[in-house]
Amino acid sequence: MRIAELSRRSGVPVPTIKYYLREGLLPAGELTSPNQARYSEGHLHRLRLVRAVVEVGGLSIAAVREVLGALDDPEKSLHKAMGTISAAVAPPDLGGDDEVAHEQARAFVERQGWVYRPKSYAYRALVGVLATAREVGHERFAETLDGLARAARPLAEADLEYVRGAETEDEALEGVVVGTVLGDAAMAAVRAIARRELSGQRATEDDPCPPPDA
Amino acid sequence: MRIAELSRRSGVPVPTIKYYLREGLLPAGELTSPNQARYSEGHLHRLRLVRAVVEVGGLSIAAVREVLGALDDPEKSLHKAMGTISAAVAPPDLGGDDEVAHEQARAFVERQGWVYRPKSYAYRALVGVLATAREVGHERFAETLDGLARAARPLAEADLEYVRGAETEDEALEGVVVGTVLGDAAMAAVRAIARRELSGQRATEDDPCPPPDA
Repeated sequence: MRIAELSRRSGVPVPTIKYYLREGLLPAGELTSPNQARYSEGHLHRLRLVRAVVEVGGLSIAAVREVLGALDDPEKSLHKAMGTISAAVAPPDLGGDDEVAHEQARAFVERQGWVYRPKSYAYRALVGVLATAREVGHERFAETLDGLARAARPLAEADLEYVRGAETEDEALEGVVVGTVLGDAAMAAVRAIARRELSGQRATEDDPCPPPDA
Repeated sequence: MRIAELSRRSGVPVPTIKYYLREGLLPAGELTSPNQARYSEGHLHRLRLVRAVVEVGGLSIAAVREVLGALDDPEKSLHKAMGTISAAVAPPDLGGDDEVAHEQARAFVERQGWVYRPKSYAYRALVGVLATAREVGHERFAETLDGLARAARPLAEADLEYVRGAETEDEALEGVVVGTVLGDAAMAAVRAIARRELSGQRATEDDPCPPPDA
């Protein structure tokens, strides 16, 4: 298909597609004349994946390049892909020198019986969140972590099940991307719905006026 | 304090502080001469809050303005603030016309015994995630939602407990911001650590080589 059809079918504007091509997020099409290229169903699929991680995950172009690199890596493995993708979606390294935040994170991980990996991206992301919470005066935020861990264990099991439900290795790797980026966004939405539901129940008990949409 | 001290204590560069002042994210300081202003501890606190939601939550300037508006609203209430903050952190409205995604979200909410609020931001965010998953060929992603809900219920309880643990109304409102923005980031990090832990255990059972950091 031509770029116009690629745009129509993906919903991504032509200038954005050209930008992704220049940035190497989408492989070049097959040239059919000096200034025309043909794109395949594979391009369409990759383009949709780029759009998903950019629009839902809010990933930067650099982070998307990392994520796609994990899918295209000739020595790819599920385990390696998980590492790369955790790195790409992690917020910038914020809490580097906050020793209290480091201590809170370490105590938390050890309480869970988990391996202490201070250099892993997910761990550093956690330290960053704790340091930020402390900076805005919410030291007690660290007390919420054990509750998060209780919720996270069955989710992590489900994440791995989801990946294992794939039929091919490429599908499994994509499952890691989708499960991580869309999974975090879905969790945020479901948590907000549940919070709203509870808060609405309580508001209704005290006050018969219907609460505004949240 | 002068702007230089505000910068030093917050870790936010002076040009960025000036940008926040121009954008109205930080109230103007008290003018002490035509081109010098004095800032209070209140400014420092607000600046740290802005930094937290921008850097950890990845919120846009427009979204931060919405969030802060909820804190400054003279008719503010916890319930209203939750609505505004859900709206601000929700990803752009993506799945508008995907009827299957709408149906998946509606069936999910009804299965949970929750009120169906198709116009709420959290619900629309969920439809957007489901539509995106379908677009990249992950129709079965919708099957993961019930697991998310089981995890989300106790978290939502904890979120409300956290807010109720505040001593003043302003602190409670800030608790909604911190609990939502930092809470989602912390959950993503903890889920990644738990996933890594499980995946590492399995990798070690099959293969004695230590897996790379993730």
